[in-house]
Amino acid sequence: MERRKFLKGSALFSGLFALNPIDLVASSQNKKASNGKKAKNIIIMISDGMSSGTLSMADLYSKTILGKSSNWMNLYTQNKVSRALMDTASASSIVTDSAAVSSALGGGIRVKNGVLNIGSNGEIHEPAWQKFKKEGKKAGCVTTVTITHATPAGFCVNSSSRNAEPEIAEMYAGLGFDILMGGGDEFFNAAKRSDKKDIYGLFTKKNYQILKERSDLHGVERGKSILGIFNTGALPYAVDHKNNTSLKNIPTLAEMTKVAIDQMKDHEEGFVLQVESGKVDWAAHANDIAGVIHDQLAFDDAIKVVMDFAEQDQDTLVIITTDHGNANPGIIYDKDATKKFESISKYKFTNEYLLNSITADFNIQQIKDLVNNVNGFSLTDVEAKQLLGFYKGIIKEEGLYNYKHLPFKLFSEIQKKHNSVGWISMDHSGDYVELAMYGPGSELLKPFVKNVDVHKIMMMQSAVK
Amino acid sequence: MERRKFLKGSALFSGLFALNPIDLVASSQNKKASNGKKAKNIIIMISDGMSSGTLSMADLYSKTILGKSSNWMNLYTQNKVSRALMDTASASSIVTDSAAVSSALGGGIRVKNGVLNIGSNGEIHEPAWQKFKKEGKKAGCVTTVTITHATPAGFCVNSSSRNAEPEIAEMYAGLGFDILMGGGDEFFNAAKRSDKKDIYGLFTKKNYQILKERSDLHGVERGKSILGIFNTGALPYAVDHKNNTSLKNIPTLAEMTKVAIDQMKDHEEGFVLQVESGKVDWAAHANDIAGVIHDQLAFDDAIKVVMDFAEQDQDTLVIITTDHGNANPGIIYDKDATKKFESISKYKFTNEYLLNSITADFNIQQIKDLVNNVNGFSLTDVEAKQLLGFYKGIIKEEGLYNYKHLPFKLFSEIQKKHNSVGWISMDHSGDYVELAMYGPGSELLKPFVKNVDVHKIMMMQSAVK
Repeated sequence: MERRKFLKGSALFSGLFALNPIDLVASSQNKKASNGKKAKNIIIMISDGMSSGTLSMADLYSKTILGKSSNWMNLYTQNKVSRALMDTASASSIVTDSAAVSSALGGGIRVKNGVLNIGSNGEIHEPAWQKFKKEGKKAGCVTTVTITHATPAGFCVNSSSRNAEPEIAEMYAGLGFDILMGGGDEFFNAAKRSDKKDIYGLFTKKNYQILKERSDLHGVERGKSILGIFNTGALPYAVDHKNNTSLKNIPTLAEMTKVAIDQMKDHEEGFVLQVESGKVDWAAHANDIAGVIHDQLAFDDAIKVVMDFAEQDQDTLVIITTDHGNANPGIIYDKDATKKFESISKYKFTNEYLLNSITADFNIQQIKDLVNNVNGFSLTDVEAKQLLGFYKGIIKEEGLYNYKHLPFKLFSEIQKKHNSVGWISMDHSGDYVELAMYGPGSELLKPFVKNVDVHKIMMMQSAVK
Repeated sequence: MERRKFLKGSALFSGLFALNPIDLVASSQNKKASNGKKAKNIIIMISDGMSSGTLSMADLYSKTILGKSSNWMNLYTQNKVSRALMDTASASSIVTDSAAVSSALGGGIRVKNGVLNIGSNGEIHEPAWQKFKKEGKKAGCVTTVTITHATPAGFCVNSSSRNAEPEIAEMYAGLGFDILMGGGDEFFNAAKRSDKKDIYGLFTKKNYQILKERSDLHGVERGKSILGIFNTGALPYAVDHKNNTSLKNIPTLAEMTKVAIDQMKDHEEGFVLQVESGKVDWAAHANDIAGVIHDQLAFDDAIKVVMDFAEQDQDTLVIITTDHGNANPGIIYDKDATKKFESISKYKFTNEYLLNSITADFNIQQIKDLVNNVNGFSLTDVEAKQLLGFYKGIIKEEGLYNYKHLPFKLFSEIQKKHNSVGWISMDHSGDYVELAMYGPGSELLKPFVKNVDVHKIMMMQSAVK
């Protein structure tokens, strides 16, 4: 960064000697702010629902278990990026949802929770990826949740409800984005849509290549638009994906990201790309520590793919952040805190996977064996009985994304005794969040920003006034 | 910052023209790293036990209730400081205690939790404030807890136990620090010490002025050393201090900080000062939101005092941080999250104060009236009965600093329904924490550091090799 800044200043040297040094600095700074080099490409990476503790724990896990720092923290240690804290509030609340933040980042407007780029008086705010498309750039999104979910949708469309995912899929077909990859077959597949519309067909007519499996990523036709829908619903959690061979034909976030960049990087007018790790948020809603850590690390793998490109390219603004905190997880003081935290490395699957494997006809011993096998610790009989109560319909747990009413909260409270990780809730938090920027445009970042300020920095890279 | 950096670079201009710009940058950067200007003074400010959410909530509270941003966030908005995330671990755990972090910051060594500047093989690490004293600087500490508590002690002494506060008071008397202000009369007062030693007498013999009340701050003799002990135990929480007139003769952190700076600022060799807001940590241990927010804001007031001096002085390295997270508080998503969070402005006293006002002979209505008066919401009869159970000895709550076994946890869970604030635990967390630096030396800060790295930056300001 320093080098880049200085080189810009050095272009002024020829007319410098009549100025005193203070004036020079001022002109140099103004130049950066208003006439600096614009990034040809923008890649914005969002680990959805990442609290400060999630970032810390993923790095601590990476260091202690995998023996290396996370790519995100390496960017800091190597002093490669500008950083900020970001205020994530929406128009309706100090605690946002993903739709409102995505509208703030993608549409430049704080809207009410649940809404995509439509103001409180019905004003339509054109999303950034539509604007960049119009000026000739390529544009795309990749995510581990449905491609019609709030975070990609907020950069792409207007909708009074984030839940209108079938309609959003149809809108996408009309908008000509170059890369759309993630989950959500139920919104594209005629057999699964209630209106029986064949959305895949609409894309095929527009000459998209349709990808359905990980192996399809190898044979893509360079430069041709891609709709890649690799699952019904979201893609699997990273830890389940790694340890369940039946999921192996679904790509990782890093793999999708690599293909997205390769498909768009040679375009003369540049490209814009959103990369979302959507299930960090879902795992936080479920207080599911293996889900949180491994999906955050999958996001971190995608950071490496992006930075390998951006460092070589030198013409790409990279933004790495989250849309809001969720559940504020953290390692709690305990005389065995380190050992307990490290025991998470024994967890073979998410709590969702584990709890989905239990049925009402399990006996106490079967539950204990399952937990021992998946998490490496022993339940007490009382705990096993409590868990079984949920499957016998005696008690019930609600929660966002908890479609099957699994006992997420109870189980994470049991796990806490063994892993020393706590949670404040099963929902979003109002904390300011971490944001890093790399490349041209990053010099505009102040250390404290609102989500809408980040939109402005992106739009300042636009060639169009 | 930019201006300062550039001016240093500009000193090289005379010999510049044989170099290409890349060389210039390299020399300029090396110069900063190894031969840059050293700070004459260092002020390190520690909001003990401040999680990321605490910093966010104090700023959000300040904005929404007080109508102005916090001073800490203003430093970011105005782009005045360098920032880092700090890894807080100790030698024995991923989650530290205050003694181990204070040893890391103050002694440059990661020790086991509970220990002050003594390595695992008994090695003695000379604390920074002793080193700076030896080279002729003045040195001091101000805190809102006992002046012998772990955070000031880690910069001043060696001790195998942080709990040896009576002995630490006696050590201070022999070390000649210039400013010591906070609580802890029981460790200095012969009548309160079990060994009946008169520690105040030792200080008087060394020509200290002894301050005992807020009003004493007005009449201090300029330049003469100060021992200011304003309470038995810690000083009161900020919100209690503000609303309980019987506490008015105890100074605020900002007031003590101002006097400390004024007493040392004219010293030719400069000074070093630690400013600690110790009860942000205690309030987090008690899951006491009014305690956390108002003590964080009292710390923020002290930031203004420090920055007013440092910006005018231009020769002071200011470090603003915490030693570790605690309880990871955050505002939880709720349709009325904003309104609920803002209701905290009605809280007149800490939970400690409120719960201390209840006695076993209270009836349900009396408890309800008290809570309504202090917090502005109504308990249900069931909640009031639950609370009363603690005073009748039916149930008991333990906890660090919870000497009287008050029902902190139960009460904060009741409050959560009304203020939408959650906590992961009643203890420290392993999260990376926020750190900001201003002034000469701050250019050495990388965006991710270990606690011991901060010690190194302080010691690089030393004139002695």
